[in-house]
Amino acid sequence: MPHQTHTSTAMNDCIQQCLACYTTCQQTALTHCLELGGEHVEPTHFRLMIDCAEVCRSAAALMANGSAFHAAQCVVCADICRACAESCKRVGDMDNCVQACERCAESCEAMASGGGRSATGHTAGTSARAS
Amino acid sequence: MPHQTHTSTAMNDCIQQCLACYTTCQQTALTHCLELGGEHVEPTHFRLMIDCAEVCRSAAALMANGSAFHAAQCVVCADICRACAESCKRVGDMDNCVQACERCAESCEAMASGGGRSATGHTAGTSARAS
Amino acid sequence: MPHQTHTSTAMNDCIQQCLACYTTCQQTALTHCLELGGEHVEPTHFRLMIDCAEVCRSAAALMANGSAFHAAQCVVCADICRACAESCKRVGDMDNCVQACERCAESCEAMASGGGRSATGHTAGTSARAS
Amino acid sequence: MPHQTHTSTAMNDCIQQCLACYTTCQQTALTHCLELGGEHVEPTHFRLMIDCAEVCRSAAALMANGSAFHAAQCVVCADICRACAESCKRVGDMDNCVQACERCAESCEAMASGGGRSATGHTAGTSARAS
Repeated sequence: MPHQTHTSTAMNDCIQQCLACYTTCQQTALTHCLELGGEHVEPTHFRLMIDCAEVCRSAAALMANGSAFHAAQCVVCADICRACAESCKRVGDMDNCVQACERCAESCEAMASGGGRSATGHTAGTSARAS
Repeated sequence: MPHQTHTSTAMNDCIQQCLACYTTCQQTALTHCLELGGEHVEPTHFRLMIDCAEVCRSAAALMANGSAFHAAQCVVCADICRACAESCKRVGDMDNCVQACERCAESCEAMASGGGRSATGHTAGTSARAS
Repeated sequence: MPHQTHTSTAMNDCIQQCLACYTTCQQTALTHCLELGGEHVEPTHFRLMIDCAEVCRSAAALMANGSAFHAAQCVVCADICRACAESCKRVGDMDNCVQACERCAESCEAMASGGGRSATGHTAGTSARAS
Repeated sequence: MPHQTHTSTAMNDCIQQCLACYTTCQQTALTHCLELGGEHVEPTHFRLMIDCAEVCRSAAALMANGSAFHAAQCVVCADICRACAESCKRVGDMDNCVQACERCAESCEAMASGGGRSATGHTAGTSARAS
């Protein structure tokens, strides 16, 4: 299966963390939060969960594409995941989301700094923060 | 972690198969196929891989949402996965995709027939095939 | 600009209706509905808006791809749009969504029946309803 | 239609440019480029078009969500659009894509700098470049 070797183990792990965080945030927002109501559907919190899901999905996509710009997307993803984890801690009863967001943030941060070479040998996008 | 109980084990497994198929098709098309060229970028084949990735991602989303329409989306997903698996077999050297597509198709077919109740107790969308 | 001729005018119009419906539902749910609360964040209604946005985006994608399966996706999209329009009428104060959903449903229904040939000359996917 | 006033005209225009660029890149890659072959399916070029489509779609989503992080996503989007426009110029016969990418880049750059307030009054995400 030669095409498996194109993408590094670290990148494949980051794709998995992004998709796990996507699923957890999307699922928790649209079932748990909507059903509990109250603080769980407070606009800033709820929006953050949906934003987080969107950006995780997109970061996973750029990595799967072997994109030269995946590092820049991982920076945005890590920032949103950190904010979402904080918001979920504050609201409470959302341990799954907190965990998924923190794991995804760590993985994206590693990918954006050290792991900044794409599957196809290009360096990371120009807008990645120098870190 | 009470919000984990909203979604059935079968549905969570189907979400995982859809996301695995999404990742495999997207990654293989944008790295393996583009780099090999020839039959691997023949329009009908390549398009099918990108279509398959798109629809898998969307089926996973509707299930994560606890959508009443997830079964209808799973039917479309299973059809495209079957077609994509056939195309990958014909082109050859794409065993990962064949496997991911077949597993996803089976899981979606099961979800569309027997598993046609959403996470939130609604019945499946009206356009699901009676099967 | 020869590549503009690949996709029919009807299909391009349907892509536009899907993206307009996507934007309207997503924007209205995440701003208007979240801020008003009450019936606007009632789980079944809110979920339907997010599902509708997701499926509209995916139908637009399959048409842009020139997918042989776009008709099947348009059927699912039309069904969800009709349901979302009904739900928005019931909740009230959501005229933009009602209009966007109804226009998108009509366009998708036309695409799924008469317009069932893709940009690339393939017939529609096998799971499209005979209509 | 009170919920129309939540999002500024500039932001709504940027959403439109992002979705137009998404549609043009996705459609051109999957029909025009695949059918012409040769330089049009050269991996770095083709991948850039698909990356561009993905990120445009995601930037549109964050703006539609009224996300506090939309500016950071717009920075990534503008960078990829600029790179995609260059690549399309080099390959040639892709004037539609060049135009759509340049318009989207300009709109996203404006949104990321001056227009850095979201629909919901939050300032832009912390990872946006100081520009």
